[in-house]
Amino acid sequence: MNPLLKEIRHNPLLWLLAFVPVLFIAQNIKPDAHTLLFVLSVLAIVPLAGLLSHATESVAAKTGDTVGGLLNATLGNLTELVIALTALHAGQYTLVKASIAGAIVTNTLFMLGMSFLLGGLRHHVQEYDRGSARLQASLLFLATIGILIPSAVSEADSAAGSEFTEKLSIGLSVLLIVAYGLGLLFSLRTHHELFGGAGHAESAETPWPMGLALTTLAGVTVLVALVSEIFVESVQHAALTFGMTPAFVGFIVVALVGGAAEMASAFSGARKNRLDLSVGIALGSASQIALFVAPVLVLLSYVIGPQPMSLQFWPGAVVMMLIATMTASLVTNSGRSAWFVGVLVLMVYLIFAMTLYLLPPRTQGESKHASITITHVGVPEA
Amino acid sequence: MNPLLKEIRHNPLLWLLAFVPVLFIAQNIKPDAHTLLFVLSVLAIVPLAGLLSHATESVAAKTGDTVGGLLNATLGNLTELVIALTALHAGQYTLVKASIAGAIVTNTLFMLGMSFLLGGLRHHVQEYDRGSARLQASLLFLATIGILIPSAVSEADSAAGSEFTEKLSIGLSVLLIVAYGLGLLFSLRTHHELFGGAGHAESAETPWPMGLALTTLAGVTVLVALVSEIFVESVQHAALTFGMTPAFVGFIVVALVGGAAEMASAFSGARKNRLDLSVGIALGSASQIALFVAPVLVLLSYVIGPQPMSLQFWPGAVVMMLIATMTASLVTNSGRSAWFVGVLVLMVYLIFAMTLYLLPPRTQGESKHASITITHVGVPEA
Amino acid sequence: MNPLLKEIRHNPLLWLLAFVPVLFIAQNIKPDAHTLLFVLSVLAIVPLAGLLSHATESVAAKTGDTVGGLLNATLGNLTELVIALTALHAGQYTLVKASIAGAIVTNTLFMLGMSFLLGGLRHHVQEYDRGSARLQASLLFLATIGILIPSAVSEADSAAGSEFTEKLSIGLSVLLIVAYGLGLLFSLRTHHELFGGAGHAESAETPWPMGLALTTLAGVTVLVALVSEIFVESVQHAALTFGMTPAFVGFIVVALVGGAAEMASAFSGARKNRLDLSVGIALGSASQIALFVAPVLVLLSYVIGPQPMSLQFWPGAVVMMLIATMTASLVTNSGRSAWFVGVLVLMVYLIFAMTLYLLPPRTQGESKHASITITHVGVPEA
Repeated sequence: MNPLLKEIRHNPLLWLLAFVPVLFIAQNIKPDAHTLLFVLSVLAIVPLAGLLSHATESVAAKTGDTVGGLLNATLGNLTELVIALTALHAGQYTLVKASIAGAIVTNTLFMLGMSFLLGGLRHHVQEYDRGSARLQASLLFLATIGILIPSAVSEADSAAGSEFTEKLSIGLSVLLIVAYGLGLLFSLRTHHELFGGAGHAESAETPWPMGLALTTLAGVTVLVALVSEIFVESVQHAALTFGMTPAFVGFIVVALVGGAAEMASAFSGARKNRLDLSVGIALGSASQIALFVAPVLVLLSYVIGPQPMSLQFWPGAVVMMLIATMTASLVTNSGRSAWFVGVLVLMVYLIFAMTLYLLPPRTQGESKHASITITHVGVPEA
Repeated sequence: MNPLLKEIRHNPLLWLLAFVPVLFIAQNIKPDAHTLLFVLSVLAIVPLAGLLSHATESVAAKTGDTVGGLLNATLGNLTELVIALTALHAGQYTLVKASIAGAIVTNTLFMLGMSFLLGGLRHHVQEYDRGSARLQASLLFLATIGILIPSAVSEADSAAGSEFTEKLSIGLSVLLIVAYGLGLLFSLRTHHELFGGAGHAESAETPWPMGLALTTLAGVTVLVALVSEIFVESVQHAALTFGMTPAFVGFIVVALVGGAAEMASAFSGARKNRLDLSVGIALGSASQIALFVAPVLVLLSYVIGPQPMSLQFWPGAVVMMLIATMTASLVTNSGRSAWFVGVLVLMVYLIFAMTLYLLPPRTQGESKHASITITHVGVPEA
Repeated sequence: MNPLLKEIRHNPLLWLLAFVPVLFIAQNIKPDAHTLLFVLSVLAIVPLAGLLSHATESVAAKTGDTVGGLLNATLGNLTELVIALTALHAGQYTLVKASIAGAIVTNTLFMLGMSFLLGGLRHHVQEYDRGSARLQASLLFLATIGILIPSAVSEADSAAGSEFTEKLSIGLSVLLIVAYGLGLLFSLRTHHELFGGAGHAESAETPWPMGLALTTLAGVTVLVALVSEIFVESVQHAALTFGMTPAFVGFIVVALVGGAAEMASAFSGARKNRLDLSVGIALGSASQIALFVAPVLVLLSYVIGPQPMSLQFWPGAVVMMLIATMTASLVTNSGRSAWFVGVLVLMVYLIFAMTLYLLPPRTQGESKHASITITHVGVPEA
């Protein structure tokens, strides 16, 4: 267990692991202290996500480029996937959809913007490979379009409409997963040289031995699942206490917590003037959510959810996802960056966060008309 | 008639010409076998479009660059124009509009995506001239915006509104045709070197003698008109039989059938690593539909249609056209392509096709509210 | 006063200054001749805007790069700001919002398109620095997104909704002004070399002495304020006489009048094959409206307006602003231009103008449903 302990000693983020046992104890003693449990579970997920990410990379490093890349690409968003699965099982579809949309928006705006800002504060103008960035931005755009089509079919509230949405969601999910599989073939086999940067990101660190890495991967995944359960249970109550809407929690809080480990890598890359790495992580991670995590959740909702989940997002989320991917395309288009580009990208993110925070939560008693009005704004359907 | 027969012998696509007489016989014997007539007319239009395209190019090759370019540019979408005129004359405005929108979407997504895919399967990474591609993508974007403005003026169902839409449609049509004329001046006279690639596409083939080319042009146009009439008559019934919505038929079937000849050229260019040619055909053809075919149909609806046709599309078509042109801009932006780019562009097309196919057709008896709902989704107004 | 008189003698535009006293006399003799007063005030504002612009540049030239740049950036849209403030004070929020949206659309489409056209008529193909143009187009896009978010929150007509819109507008305004401040830091201090072109535009002309420049600045600002008051008062009546909607007046007339001086600089730059200058003025000016003028007006509405003004635009304006900034991004993306690019950009502008001109004005007596319908189209809320 030496490398694991060494890692923990050198990485202050991992000291937060202390909150994992604290959380389980608190859960047993005070099962109704929702706000406390919410805060503790957030603090516990962050270091677990970091460990998960490191374990995945260690396994990947040992198994050769192709299998390793496959693992990295599939398990890179494992934390988000486990949280979403827990919420799916609990039937909290609002939270699931908000966390999908939020992960795409947070990765493209917050991760990218903060990378540009942090990199730009240290380097006057940063250049990165336009070609790769554009290719990845195109993939992200197309992936996002994929999950947005059923939402364009928005107010289909009639019986025929909902059956249509369901059929379309299944068809699209299969199509998106096929595209994801072909994308892996593309990025790992036929054209891996275009994505070279991102793969070898952490290779400077010493990878763990295989046994340790696999054990950590399995053990931490179980821990994340257990912590997620407490998180999903407490989040509704805590949101009320903090005056946050469920949309805000899913969109902002879950996305930031779930992506903490990847963000650490992206930001460190930016500060080392390796923006290719940061852009690759941010856009690649967002594409993966759209092409893999979202359709898998739709298909799994038939197995583990109380009812089928569609790929239909509320209009506010659609607008935000579209703007986020358009921003990413525009901003990575020039192949150069400076701190103010980061400020503006972060501004768009802040505006989204402010809008979601201020948004009055949709109350049950409202008339149909009013609810459409506010749904239009940004609150997901119950 | 030797070159024509030679052409037919060497081009397996032209063997389908046998379906032309079969269609006319079937039409006389079984005028009510709509599904049969529909299939036969589709099979008959494809080779006729090919002949028309070859005849146009032969005339163009003989008449010098400028007049030839003018002919190529004006008659390049002659098949689409004749089909649309037949539908216009029959008062089937849904079909006309769906085929306009579908031709734009099919050319930008299917033709471009398939070119990238077919080219990418043979060549690792394909490079093409960014500058020209960007210029053409900009023209396409602006042309599409032009025909979309009145649709933004969507639910104008009041008397004032419909008068407004009509006036605006006429004004815009004139403006678009003027822009088209200036565009010809630009691409054939003042800046023809920027569009060099596309013009000399087929020059490798031996052009037909002038007499043969002109006779073929006239004769085949008449044949296309006759076949189109059967096609337009049978399409509604056939759609019901195959479970297809009129939107699907116009958007997908008519567009694929009408553009078959151009697609053959674009795909063959891509396989020969001449992506400039493929991109030029795909984007140029889509621009031409928006700037020339669509406004001509609006103006002609005052002469040959039972009532004026507006430039107003249903919201689903607007969204699809916008996404298609944005995709084309993004994807051609980098100047390089690989097979997976083609896959993703085709995926967007497949998603559109799936959405249109699954869409419940708008039934007559539905309430106003329900019909708005579904109109919003993608079914054109009756 | 020699340099001022010299300037007036050499610049035919300034001969229009004669209309300033004529306007004040007409206002005293015939206070009800609204159409006459409207025409006279338009003719009077154009030369005053020119003088204001020249005085600002003279002060800027004397005070060194940073302070000068700051002055130029802040007072560059002083005319628009003064007109909008006068309208704000009069409670004409429709006019204020239409003039904000119109200034963004006019600067990005008309100023850019006309620069491309005028430059292209003299030079075959014009090249300009892609990098700077893209950076500025990205800034403009992000700035526009900033002011569009509350409008996505469109039909929030409930009590909770309007309180939400108000809070969001204040929050966003503060955020936008902070971003504007950081943008000045960026363009004047840390990365001024990227914006080099635009700053030194007029340095060829002899700057005025400081005293004259400051006096002109103060005196002309007062004159603009006085003329604006007559303009705002007469515009409603005049619009009726000319059959123009208030949206058309604000969007097109005010924007063209207020931006006349900047347009003169941009067009002259384009003809001298200095497209970097033209693009910089057009995109920079539009960004400034979005990041500075709009939020300042929102915040000042609490001080000088009869009631708070939100950042919420009607859907037609939102669509037009989005299309305008997307067009600017696409068109400046390639770094080269020819006359037809200008034609197409101007065509989009003409289409917008035609739509706004033909739009039936929203009458008071209409039902709620009808008014929503037409609001959707392009008429601002009363």
